[in-house]
Amino acid sequence: MTIRTIAILGTGLIGASVGMALREQGFTGAVLGWDKDQSQAHIALERGGIAEVVDEPLMAATAADLILLAGPVFSILEWMDRLAPILLPHQLVTDVGSVKHPMVLKAAAEFTGWERAGFLGGHPMSGKEVSGAAHADAGLFRGSVWLFTPGNSGPHPLEAEWRQWVAKFGSRTLDLEAERHDELCAWVSHMPQMLATALSALYEDHFGEAEDMRAIGGRALREMTRLGASPYSMWRDIAHTNADAIAKAISALEQRLAHLREHLKTPELRDEFDRANAFRNSHPFR
Amino acid sequence: MTIRTIAILGTGLIGASVGMALREQGFTGAVLGWDKDQSQAHIALERGGIAEVVDEPLMAATAADLILLAGPVFSILEWMDRLAPILLPHQLVTDVGSVKHPMVLKAAAEFTGWERAGFLGGHPMSGKEVSGAAHADAGLFRGSVWLFTPGNSGPHPLEAEWRQWVAKFGSRTLDLEAERHDELCAWVSHMPQMLATALSALYEDHFGEAEDMRAIGGRALREMTRLGASPYSMWRDIAHTNADAIAKAISALEQRLAHLREHLKTPELRDEFDRANAFRNSHPFR
Repeated sequence: MTIRTIAILGTGLIGASVGMALREQGFTGAVLGWDKDQSQAHIALERGGIAEVVDEPLMAATAADLILLAGPVFSILEWMDRLAPILLPHQLVTDVGSVKHPMVLKAAAEFTGWERAGFLGGHPMSGKEVSGAAHADAGLFRGSVWLFTPGNSGPHPLEAEWRQWVAKFGSRTLDLEAERHDELCAWVSHMPQMLATALSALYEDHFGEAEDMRAIGGRALREMTRLGASPYSMWRDIAHTNADAIAKAISALEQRLAHLREHLKTPELRDEFDRANAFRNSHPFR
Repeated sequence: MTIRTIAILGTGLIGASVGMALREQGFTGAVLGWDKDQSQAHIALERGGIAEVVDEPLMAATAADLILLAGPVFSILEWMDRLAPILLPHQLVTDVGSVKHPMVLKAAAEFTGWERAGFLGGHPMSGKEVSGAAHADAGLFRGSVWLFTPGNSGPHPLEAEWRQWVAKFGSRTLDLEAERHDELCAWVSHMPQMLATALSALYEDHFGEAEDMRAIGGRALREMTRLGASPYSMWRDIAHTNADAIAKAISALEQRLAHLREHLKTPELRDEFDRANAFRNSHPFR
């Protein structure tokens, strides 16, 4: 065991959940936590996600073997800028951001060479529509996939050990090229989020306080709009840094909807249902 | 208790579930069942949804106090045509179709006058993405809403008793004008179904057998495409008979998606998230 001290910068839903999962899986080292909103760090502390709230994140980072960046995407990029010059080669920085290409580009520029710390891009596909340490859960990663986007500099000495912890959290792991990661996530995560937001906003504007509409909403409506509760604070950065890929996926959906709309009364509707059935029958949902 | 014999024409998911719910709630009369595919009626029989499979649906209907039409929309309309001339005023016909205006129009023309049976349009908002008596469930209606669209001829003598059974199934009931019913359902049920179909079909075409895409799909993808498994056989008639209202709702969603897509990097994205949050926070999902 070489990872003895972990600093979590950003102790919201994901950061605090990682800390709780570490503890549940028997991590006996120190877990230091900091958040831009320190009330989140104190909630994480109360819930057992961190062992100590630190006031000086840079000092905590320099004292840690592994530094987990768990804030929104732009905050992760800012922390990479601040940490690259002051960390040492034995240290490993990893993150949980929902886009990866910007981090991998920055790592290739700043976390490179014999005198610099290592960087391993990571992304647990385990979100919720709610945020904050109060919703953290040691079991959040169980049964889902934790994506990694390794760079070209070869594995850092601590990487294998960190991957073992992720496996202990109950996640399968999968390595992807960063560009492919961002394209795939645009389709299976970011576009569905934007769709749920657009759909929920549309209902809000179209129905307002209509009593009859409120009375009849069932499971379909609840499911399709669940992610409408997601916070802008987290999605702003994702939308900004992966805008092109997300726009392509949304545009493809618009065209598909228009096609179906024009064929509500034609046999082409059967073909669309057949294709949709094929997707659901063949996709190994976990 | 005046309803002693019930004929269920169409013993698929909904028809068989009604039979099972009747039995669970202590209905002691006779429940006769028929389906265009009699293997469905035999499954309903095995599962306790009906007490007898009948080979002559018209004879079963003439023998029943209450006739429940539980096939696809066009089959319901056909049965209304066939039954109106042969039933008697003491009998009540009701249905479970997902559109209501066509039935109410037909009822006003055919189930009217002193010599005709009564008709009460009904619609339990309790679907599944799977069909067939094998998936029937006595608890299917618990906690959901069962919509009624009464005509102008005043309540039939059996109507109050049938409403009591529906309440015993665990459904809240709500009466709506048929046009309003069809517009509301276009928005909260039919459009979401078409959306899930379009989204699933898009994934099928865009990704095909891509292994990495199959590996990473999480809860969002699973939820947003669940209804992609729905059968065309049931939705064809709904799409056909409610096409205008569904097309309007789809078109509004297309415009909303285009708007969001154009504002992925602008502050307008925050407004969309705020509206979506407001919808989710205020809607009393049950």
